[in-house]
Amino acid sequence: GPHAPVNVAEFHALAKAKLTPMVYGYFSSGADDQQTLQDNEEGFRRLRFRPRVLIDVSNADMMTEVLGVKISFPLVVAPTAMQRMAHPEGELATARAVAKAGTVMGLSSWSTTALEDVEAEAPGSPKWFQLYVYKDREVTKQLVMRAEAAGYKAIALTVDTPRLGRREADIKNQFNLPPHLTMGNFAMLKQANMENDGGSGLAAYVASLIDRSLSWKDIQWLKSITKMPILAKGVVTAEDAVLAVENGCAGIIVSNHGARQLDGVISTIDALEEVVNAVQGKVPVFVDSGVRRGTDIVKALALGAKACLIGRPVVWGLSVAGEQGITYVLDMLKKEFELAMSLCGCVKVSDINRSMVIRDAFAPYDVRRTLPPSKA
Amino acid sequence: GPHAPVNVAEFHALAKAKLTPMVYGYFSSGADDQQTLQDNEEGFRRLRFRPRVLIDVSNADMMTEVLGVKISFPLVVAPTAMQRMAHPEGELATARAVAKAGTVMGLSSWSTTALEDVEAEAPGSPKWFQLYVYKDREVTKQLVMRAEAAGYKAIALTVDTPRLGRREADIKNQFNLPPHLTMGNFAMLKQANMENDGGSGLAAYVASLIDRSLSWKDIQWLKSITKMPILAKGVVTAEDAVLAVENGCAGIIVSNHGARQLDGVISTIDALEEVVNAVQGKVPVFVDSGVRRGTDIVKALALGAKACLIGRPVVWGLSVAGEQGITYVLDMLKKEFELAMSLCGCVKVSDINRSMVIRDAFAPYDVRRTLPPSKA
Amino acid sequence: GPHAPVNVAEFHALAKAKLTPMVYGYFSSGADDQQTLQDNEEGFRRLRFRPRVLIDVSNADMMTEVLGVKISFPLVVAPTAMQRMAHPEGELATARAVAKAGTVMGLSSWSTTALEDVEAEAPGSPKWFQLYVYKDREVTKQLVMRAEAAGYKAIALTVDTPRLGRREADIKNQFNLPPHLTMGNFAMLKQANMENDGGSGLAAYVASLIDRSLSWKDIQWLKSITKMPILAKGVVTAEDAVLAVENGCAGIIVSNHGARQLDGVISTIDALEEVVNAVQGKVPVFVDSGVRRGTDIVKALALGAKACLIGRPVVWGLSVAGEQGITYVLDMLKKEFELAMSLCGCVKVSDINRSMVIRDAFAPYDVRRTLPPSKA
Amino acid sequence: GPHAPVNVAEFHALAKAKLTPMVYGYFSSGADDQQTLQDNEEGFRRLRFRPRVLIDVSNADMMTEVLGVKISFPLVVAPTAMQRMAHPEGELATARAVAKAGTVMGLSSWSTTALEDVEAEAPGSPKWFQLYVYKDREVTKQLVMRAEAAGYKAIALTVDTPRLGRREADIKNQFNLPPHLTMGNFAMLKQANMENDGGSGLAAYVASLIDRSLSWKDIQWLKSITKMPILAKGVVTAEDAVLAVENGCAGIIVSNHGARQLDGVISTIDALEEVVNAVQGKVPVFVDSGVRRGTDIVKALALGAKACLIGRPVVWGLSVAGEQGITYVLDMLKKEFELAMSLCGCVKVSDINRSMVIRDAFAPYDVRRTLPPSKA
Ligand SMILES: Cc1cc2nc3c(=O)[nH]c(=O)nc-3n(C[C@H](O)[C@H](O)[C@H](O)COP(=O)(O)O)c2cc1C
Ligand SMILES: Cc1cc2nc3c(=O)[nH]c(=O)nc-3n(C[C@H](O)[C@H](O)[C@H](O)COP(=O)(O)O)c2cc1C
Ligand SMILES: Cc1cc2nc3c(=O)[nH]c(=O)nc-3n(C[C@H](O)[C@H](O)[C@H](O)COP(=O)(O)O)c2cc1C
Ligand SMILES: Cc1cc2nc3c(=O)[nH]c(=O)nc-3n(C[C@H](O)[C@H](O)[C@H](O)COP(=O)(O)O)c2cc1C
Repeated sequence: GPHAPVNVAEFHALAKAKLTPMVYGYFSSGADDQQTLQDNEEGFRRLRFRPRVLIDVSNADMMTEVLGVKISFPLVVAPTAMQRMAHPEGELATARAVAKAGTVMGLSSWSTTALEDVEAEAPGSPKWFQLYVYKDREVTKQLVMRAEAAGYKAIALTVDTPRLGRREADIKNQFNLPPHLTMGNFAMLKQANMENDGGSGLAAYVASLIDRSLSWKDIQWLKSITKMPILAKGVVTAEDAVLAVENGCAGIIVSNHGARQLDGVISTIDALEEVVNAVQGKVPVFVDSGVRRGTDIVKALALGAKACLIGRPVVWGLSVAGEQGITYVLDMLKKEFELAMSLCGCVKVSDINRSMVIRDAFAPYDVRRTLPPSKA
Repeated sequence: GPHAPVNVAEFHALAKAKLTPMVYGYFSSGADDQQTLQDNEEGFRRLRFRPRVLIDVSNADMMTEVLGVKISFPLVVAPTAMQRMAHPEGELATARAVAKAGTVMGLSSWSTTALEDVEAEAPGSPKWFQLYVYKDREVTKQLVMRAEAAGYKAIALTVDTPRLGRREADIKNQFNLPPHLTMGNFAMLKQANMENDGGSGLAAYVASLIDRSLSWKDIQWLKSITKMPILAKGVVTAEDAVLAVENGCAGIIVSNHGARQLDGVISTIDALEEVVNAVQGKVPVFVDSGVRRGTDIVKALALGAKACLIGRPVVWGLSVAGEQGITYVLDMLKKEFELAMSLCGCVKVSDINRSMVIRDAFAPYDVRRTLPPSKA
Repeated sequence: GPHAPVNVAEFHALAKAKLTPMVYGYFSSGADDQQTLQDNEEGFRRLRFRPRVLIDVSNADMMTEVLGVKISFPLVVAPTAMQRMAHPEGELATARAVAKAGTVMGLSSWSTTALEDVEAEAPGSPKWFQLYVYKDREVTKQLVMRAEAAGYKAIALTVDTPRLGRREADIKNQFNLPPHLTMGNFAMLKQANMENDGGSGLAAYVASLIDRSLSWKDIQWLKSITKMPILAKGVVTAEDAVLAVENGCAGIIVSNHGARQLDGVISTIDALEEVVNAVQGKVPVFVDSGVRRGTDIVKALALGAKACLIGRPVVWGLSVAGEQGITYVLDMLKKEFELAMSLCGCVKVSDINRSMVIRDAFAPYDVRRTLPPSKA
Repeated sequence: GPHAPVNVAEFHALAKAKLTPMVYGYFSSGADDQQTLQDNEEGFRRLRFRPRVLIDVSNADMMTEVLGVKISFPLVVAPTAMQRMAHPEGELATARAVAKAGTVMGLSSWSTTALEDVEAEAPGSPKWFQLYVYKDREVTKQLVMRAEAAGYKAIALTVDTPRLGRREADIKNQFNLPPHLTMGNFAMLKQANMENDGGSGLAAYVASLIDRSLSWKDIQWLKSITKMPILAKGVVTAEDAVLAVENGCAGIIVSNHGARQLDGVISTIDALEEVVNAVQGKVPVFVDSGVRRGTDIVKALALGAKACLIGRPVVWGLSVAGEQGITYVLDMLKKEFELAMSLCGCVKVSDINRSMVIRDAFAPYDVRRTLPPSKA
């Protein structure tokens, strides 16, 4: 008979069966040939564990701290747009489930629920506001100020999206936000609506409204309008990691946007160590894109990440069973992580160290890539 | 027409056809995505032979010695649990076949036959008792003392199982020991029975009864209650190999538990040489997980193993034809090993040396991984 | 419902469905086992991007210059033979589409339209004439002089075809130019017709008419009969790159003829950097064979190419919808390139540099091959 | 409609369709899991050409010399047993076809035609006699003396077969020489017949009759009974290459017996360069196992081989169309080789040099394997 899903991949399959092709296409797809979509997951598989044994693991402690907030285990929920397409309760269901799980929720600028309503649904539990910078800087400023006023703990500034990636499913499906939904943070504003001219409606939206001129100096501007710490979401090189620190970012999220922006980009787990080495511990480094297992979290932490984020796994949980589905997914990953930690001989999160992983047998030298001398 | 199976893979297929899905699932599966299950076998394929020619191989001598006991060829039978699920005669059939084959039998703590009955079935032929340490140390102590009294030659202390790995087939099948069987070493004790609360019954059993706090100091305790030599089963790193030697282990079994504990762990054949180099000949090093061919045994010995162990191949033989099936499998592997030795130009086991194998053409440098400096 | 093709691969599929097997076989196939055909595309996938972020990309400028001519983006149309087999308008449709796209058209010696007619169809827009050197040097000389007189901007001298590669589809199909078509540059001459003796008609044509004795000294001869700059098309080694420069070539096209000549030859993207390093900036280096995406163009430029050429993608566009099909393909690749540039943080073509790509994670060392000492 | 086969793979398919499963199984199969069978061919694909251009190739000269005999191109026919199973004319057809092709024929000890009859069928054309050393040294001596008397030019002493490899098809099929055939070199002797006891009849034959004690000192014995030069067939290591030279062998055939002996052995093209370097030009080095294309021959020569041998391709030709089939195969490979040479810019065989190939992009360092220090 049928059984409850036992891993993220089974949630993915259930969600696919439930969603319309257009919505499933939007949630699942990566850019162009989806090479990076596959590589993000494969990158984790290229690492192998070197577990330690005969260590008393009877008191596993998964707690960690991100930006001064204690979370139940080193996994944060990434901001993903338009969650009401997955489930009528959308971001509200997510907020409740994430609060219950004791971790941080990332809320997208393109939430289908107003940020204040999301906060109100799970008041006080930690949230990060993901920011897309609009050409209309007044609109942008209002967003940031509202997030701060509502109690959001940080801004995750998305730096990899001056334009939207080519997601061919969306082009073919002429993807558009379904008419009964709006971009909830922009009530009454033109930024609330997507229109479609024959390709991806979202790509057209970004092209017309999002600011392609965004640059490092705008971090100064952002800091001038908010006291919230700023995370640079979408850095994958040492060069940019150094710039992020120099420009006052409070942390870095190594991300390739779930492979939705530039196909062929390095997988994030391959990029992570370069970034970690570059920041030299000055700010925490997070990583997302391709995390599907508790073991993936251990691998990322071994390479120096403070915590991981997940995007699609939460969307699949939400699609399948709303709040309960997300709770199930987060709980499953927490249990997987706890077991993986224990089987590696780690009692607490800080026990996870670089010696716990090597690259796989096809590339048996565990040294860092020799980077070409940067011209930047 | 049908023919007798000619290799381990064909025994596997026959066993699969014969067993119920629940039992087959338990015997065959690895943890999580079964990446390591595949990698254990692939690891052997990544090695290539450099055979020597024009050596008189008319007197092939396969004999070797493990812990002071002569065996007919360098293959030992690994402890595998609950063999009566494979065949009504279970561990008794195994004991007879292994004795006849002239090698060592590993008996699991979770045997479905009492250890004394197993010994009585093949009296005097060498056996190792695999030990899981129970929270109830008195129960554990009784087990060890009974094994010693019965004449077992060594304790194989399993060090990779403070908790049970996530075997998804068992979770889906709500795996449980069939009602007509019991854990034969625990008659009348609560440790004799598995109960099921909706997932893997065995995982629940381990969580409730096995001691997660087991650590290196417990080797001292074990040595205080038995004179049997202690093998650390489940070491895959140089660091732990050194600790095993320092803590008085008489040998090391490089094992990842047949890929059933931590998915993504290094394949044992890739880990072997690191361990061999670390122990510097002070104790013998054995290896299991993925051995399926006589050539695999030659490869392992070339990298420094004293002998290999096999788990599933014996289970498949037992499932297909009881004692006779195991005899067939062991005999086949012995013949394969003898042929492989001869075709490598080796007359006796000690002729097999490091120069006989290289890593494959995709990773043509035959040097050891550079390990990250251990923080431990 | 059906949608417009969204990438080159979909154009390929549509063209395959439309063309006869003989014509499709000729256009699509590579030599022998088609290993290089696959490797040309895979070579690009082995590279990974290291994109830079937070750079103002609001004014993307894709313009570049090739041999003194400004083109709208760094993509040139490679010479491909016998285009009237793809579409009745053949090379005339190509000329119009390429002129409209603002780039250079390569015209094959084996055009099914006379070079003067092609020029007249899109007068003044830049064209390169691809030259095969015939045994009959007078015929060859006339060709070159006519091209110069008609206003062609350069000679692309094909150096990899002293004989035709073994394209097994053509052998099986006994490929021949359909009777209603002729080699348009050779009206009235015997060089205008292909005959078939049971294998590839084109292979027989080349064997009987093309000069196998062509060598570096013939560059001098060519320079003596024309003022047009000469590009060596088909160089894949540092050694030949140096010789090309020494013999006065104005540029190099790193090409393996779309994998149609020597199967097993290095993919061009793998050969590119060696050539770039060897020429030390003395002449521009172009690359073709396997370019299918805007991201491929960025990768090639990162490794030092001045521009890419495409062969089959244009043939597929022409086959599917004539001039309009080519316009669609070129426009799509231009948009893909612009997006890829922007997502890499590049504002103008010259911003694309070596630090933007690394080889993939299976070969993580980004160093150049150590070449064996050349005996030549 | 159907077309003539255009490559060796198509001959293979036609032969498979024509032969009985038992005979096809014998001819085609490799040992155990047939990993090396696949790897032999893949080894060639892992090499990439670095062709040179603009070299006058109008006078391609494929001639070369092996052991003082001129041959039409650097390909020799390997000895393969029992050719009358493929075609009624068996070795006689082969002798005629090979003589016509102007190269050397290897004749197996296990020919189904007497060596004198084979010589008589193509008198004077060069042949090598492949020797298996029988326990009965008198029988062996007679064989060698008869070969010398008949005019054979060399002994190819097979050094990789003290016992027969495990070919599972033969075990399953209980392979035996069909009753109407005999081992033609042993008329009236017990060595003429194979009997079957339930597994591979040939394996039993070898076990009972072939001398497992054969060693380097027997080269002296051989040299004492014949003036023919002796080639060591089956060497794959530098160590044995040095011993072969020291013991007076006139040449080495790098071979793994077409992957029929030890599964997992290094592919011959990967072993070749090590052997070439070890012999330092003192004797010629040949290579077989996996050669299927003219390009493979160029690759082998680039790595230092004097010529290649082919086994199965000739068997497929013979099976499909007797003498004519072999002629077709040899002619096809000659044409492929000539074309490949020309496309590499080589005019004569000695132009093919080390710089013409590199290992593939997944292992881009073209350096030799670092061998472990030999203990032998
Ligand atoms: C459906 C979907 C919507 C997303 N929306 C946003 C967004 O609005 N803003 C943003 O910065 N990232 C967005 N992302 C990227 C995620 O924040 C995160 O980087 C990514 O999902 C991680 O990869 P994973 O899905 O493989 O876990 C989105 C991702 C998905 C899959
Ligand atoms: C069905 C099964 C049961 C096992 N039971 C035990 C056990 O009770 N104790 C233990 O230490 N290892 C156990 N193992 C692991 C084996 O001892 C051995 O490490 C493993 O089977 C070797 O891998 P292989 O199956 O690939 O040969 C078991 C393995 C299998 C497949
Ligand atoms: C159908 C076809 C015809 C071609 N004809 C010629 C030709 O006449 N002269 C020439 O130099 N190259 C010719 N080429 C090679 C192209 O100029 C170019 O090098 C190649 O197509 C690039 O590879 P791609 O097809 O993968 O883009 C031809 C290629 C194809 C596919
Ligand atoms: C059917 C068959 C029979 C063979 N018989 C012999 C033999 O009698 N003696 C020998 O030395 N090698 C024998 N060989 C090995 C060949 O000489 C040669 O090494 C091998 O076929 C080369 O590999 P290839 O088949 O991939 O070209 C045989 C190979 C095959 C396929």
